[in-house]
Amino acid sequence: MKDDQKNEQITKRSDDFSQWYLDVIREASLVENSPVRGCMVIKPYGYAIWENIQRYLDSEFKKTGVENAYFPLLIPKSFLEREAEHVEGFAKECAVVTHHRLEERDGKLVPAGELEEPFIIRPTSETIIYDTYSKWVRSYRDLPILINQWANVMRWEMRTRPFLRTAEFLWQEGHTAHATKLEAEEEAMQMANVYEKFLVEQLAISPVPGKKTESEKFAGADYTISLEAMMQDTKALQSCTSHMLGQNFAKPFNVSFVDENQKQQYVWQTSWGLSTRIIGAMIMSHSDDKGLVVPPNIAPIQVVIIPIIGNPEDETLVMAKVGTLANELKHNGIRYKVDTREGRPGFKFFEWERKGVPIRIEIGPKDVAKNSFVAVDRIEGKKEFIDDVNAVSYLTNKLIEIQNTLLERNKKFREDNTRTTEDYEEFKKIISDKGGFVISHLCHNKECEAKIKDDTAATSRCIPFNEEHTEGECIYCKSKADRKVIFAKAY
Amino acid sequence: MKDDQKNEQITKRSDDFSQWYLDVIREASLVENSPVRGCMVIKPYGYAIWENIQRYLDSEFKKTGVENAYFPLLIPKSFLEREAEHVEGFAKECAVVTHHRLEERDGKLVPAGELEEPFIIRPTSETIIYDTYSKWVRSYRDLPILINQWANVMRWEMRTRPFLRTAEFLWQEGHTAHATKLEAEEEAMQMANVYEKFLVEQLAISPVPGKKTESEKFAGADYTISLEAMMQDTKALQSCTSHMLGQNFAKPFNVSFVDENQKQQYVWQTSWGLSTRIIGAMIMSHSDDKGLVVPPNIAPIQVVIIPIIGNPEDETLVMAKVGTLANELKHNGIRYKVDTREGRPGFKFFEWERKGVPIRIEIGPKDVAKNSFVAVDRIEGKKEFIDDVNAVSYLTNKLIEIQNTLLERNKKFREDNTRTTEDYEEFKKIISDKGGFVISHLCHNKECEAKIKDDTAATSRCIPFNEEHTEGECIYCKSKADRKVIFAKAY
Repeated sequence: MKDDQKNEQITKRSDDFSQWYLDVIREASLVENSPVRGCMVIKPYGYAIWENIQRYLDSEFKKTGVENAYFPLLIPKSFLEREAEHVEGFAKECAVVTHHRLEERDGKLVPAGELEEPFIIRPTSETIIYDTYSKWVRSYRDLPILINQWANVMRWEMRTRPFLRTAEFLWQEGHTAHATKLEAEEEAMQMANVYEKFLVEQLAISPVPGKKTESEKFAGADYTISLEAMMQDTKALQSCTSHMLGQNFAKPFNVSFVDENQKQQYVWQTSWGLSTRIIGAMIMSHSDDKGLVVPPNIAPIQVVIIPIIGNPEDETLVMAKVGTLANELKHNGIRYKVDTREGRPGFKFFEWERKGVPIRIEIGPKDVAKNSFVAVDRIEGKKEFIDDVNAVSYLTNKLIEIQNTLLERNKKFREDNTRTTEDYEEFKKIISDKGGFVISHLCHNKECEAKIKDDTAATSRCIPFNEEHTEGECIYCKSKADRKVIFAKAY
Repeated sequence: MKDDQKNEQITKRSDDFSQWYLDVIREASLVENSPVRGCMVIKPYGYAIWENIQRYLDSEFKKTGVENAYFPLLIPKSFLEREAEHVEGFAKECAVVTHHRLEERDGKLVPAGELEEPFIIRPTSETIIYDTYSKWVRSYRDLPILINQWANVMRWEMRTRPFLRTAEFLWQEGHTAHATKLEAEEEAMQMANVYEKFLVEQLAISPVPGKKTESEKFAGADYTISLEAMMQDTKALQSCTSHMLGQNFAKPFNVSFVDENQKQQYVWQTSWGLSTRIIGAMIMSHSDDKGLVVPPNIAPIQVVIIPIIGNPEDETLVMAKVGTLANELKHNGIRYKVDTREGRPGFKFFEWERKGVPIRIEIGPKDVAKNSFVAVDRIEGKKEFIDDVNAVSYLTNKLIEIQNTLLERNKKFREDNTRTTEDYEEFKKIISDKGGFVISHLCHNKECEAKIKDDTAATSRCIPFNEEHTEGECIYCKSKADRKVIFAKAY
């Protein structure tokens, strides 16, 4: 007999947030562990969410002129040795390919055909892509280059958690090259804005955008813009990043061009990425003790219709009505599923609740007689009786209402858990007692940031754009500071 | 100074087909070699063709109930050791991951953190996926499992050619599990039909579907269905395959279920895949000495509009007309591009011709005056003057006409180069003098097939479905044979 993992309880958020997260994922069938340490199997329902994310972002990227392309999975070791700061940040824990053959010896397969130069599986693709750009760019007429890649990447993480930190994950990485610094800066900001719009309008997450401090920026970037979201346990989660790379890669990889005045120049570059990690953020932002909650705009199934057939003779009537409604939903672009499986309705209600489908519709013989149906929304659990004639308008509005409610809740929760202080004792007390975001002045001495992390386990999340130029005293050393920083414990 | 590879000549097909293929790819900017041996960089125009292929197939798969999922890139070595025949066919040349860290020593990065068990980068995913299915399947109610994955795979090929044979390539691999043998057989055939429809209707390629012989089938399959296309040099290209796996993986990976009678049974499985190789087939099926030809249904750009502006004062008028036309095309779902770059029209004509855009439109001041425009189709090069009022109907019909012409040509070429013989001397003469497909009886002795390959370099391509049961004498050994087989030299 195989283990039956189904129908286990979901731990309460208040009891053990960490276990709750794992329970929600298991019960919603999003992903599961694989036999490859730290790698997940993304199951169809989890992957359908990723497909919706891809469809939206891909279209938004293309609106800005970005095209997709594909670069090799493997990166020559020598490429990593070229950009020193980048190596420092990335190259350490990675999958190294050293052989190109397995040979049979004594009934076992052993690696053979040792490579002259090892390859690593891309942890990110700046080096291989910019080596290619160096061949593509000759003149200012070849610029800008605006390219995105949907790909798998790998970082050999020691402690893994589904979606949040896995050895292999899926993402998109955009890589652009521009003739001027200003243009590159605008691109990095534009893509941060695309991401913010996506988080707010699709995932119903209200993040704080801002620049990373020097200690927390991407290895090899001039600066990094990140969107910091707050999870329901008040911890921060970096949702995605957009990097202004300056000429840090252009120089070692010789990405240069002849400008309009016949002068040889290095390009200015950006890179920006969002990964399957964002699904972890979605889960921890909205889900509850009953299971997953998926915002309607990104939900693979927005409405599930469950026929209630007590007596076989009711089947024809009930299914006719279900068919009519399903057809209406289809023509109005509402993503629905009719659950015609065998089994008790109660079990089905429970399952779709755990999967976070925004609206459940129940249709039985009484509903046929009354020309109405029962609708239950996932986040309030409120039961409503809806006249058939109002079906589409009710559902359309309800989906918008649920989407808005989730966003407002998320925003309010973040605001309620964001505090400002100029006193380090208070700072420490907030972090340890209440958690959340703490906004304080911070000087440019990296030591202060490191000490704060040692004392509190909170890290600097970002310098919100409206706090980039505010005079004051560093929360730690009391010397002059010219910016405020958000600190929080983070995923 | 960097090398300038642009504007090189395209070798004629009749002079050197192999070089012609490389020239067409280079001049159309589809892919290029990367610094990672045998791996290609897929450039935006090449990737856009792949995206159209993905969009079509993904939608067709889903219509049959297939869902997408994602499984790990790495496969534990021990998994490959389980299915012996599969190892034999695949495991030999593959990328082996043996370490999980790079460490700095004397300014160089060296592999460190040796893994207890090496992993290989998936050459195909049967083993890792079926290990997962063994956890998912318990009862007949869990069946069928219908899953597809879009992924990169890697096979350490020694001699590589863009699209046709590369170390890393992109593909989709479908993996299904069924309660009965019949259902699995129907699934394998259904997917072969999806592929055939795709080749015929989208790529304008008319392939021959049929079963592979025992020697040529997928390692680990009961049988393999393939679609064999004929390239313009009369060589065969295996476009894609659909495998009936029987219970060959179900047993070693223990994918079993309790049936309706409470009996434990192994599942019946299929797998089916199509890769970026198909783009190579498209290129070699339709392109000509002027460069790439892309069938309209799959073309990223179906119509390119080139404004002809000799005098700056014409710009406003010409661009107004271009804008009106572009708008019409957009509303009628025609994929178009307006080429407003600097540069001479002649250079642009030449470039879009090499990129295989089906229709080019030229609009200058005279066309504005005459309320018409010039249209040139890519495959005949015929210039036509079209009244503005007929724009959409003309273009829509012309795209259909081009698509149909390409398909008819491809079909006729294959038929014209397919010959039947029962005489081995004639067989050898056809293969060496004329090439193409040769249809002959073949017995079940693998030796005959091997000898024919030794003698002629032609391999058995498939047993066409209508030739599966035809009595006769084996072309090689003259003993009794019960089927006919297509032989050809192949990619």
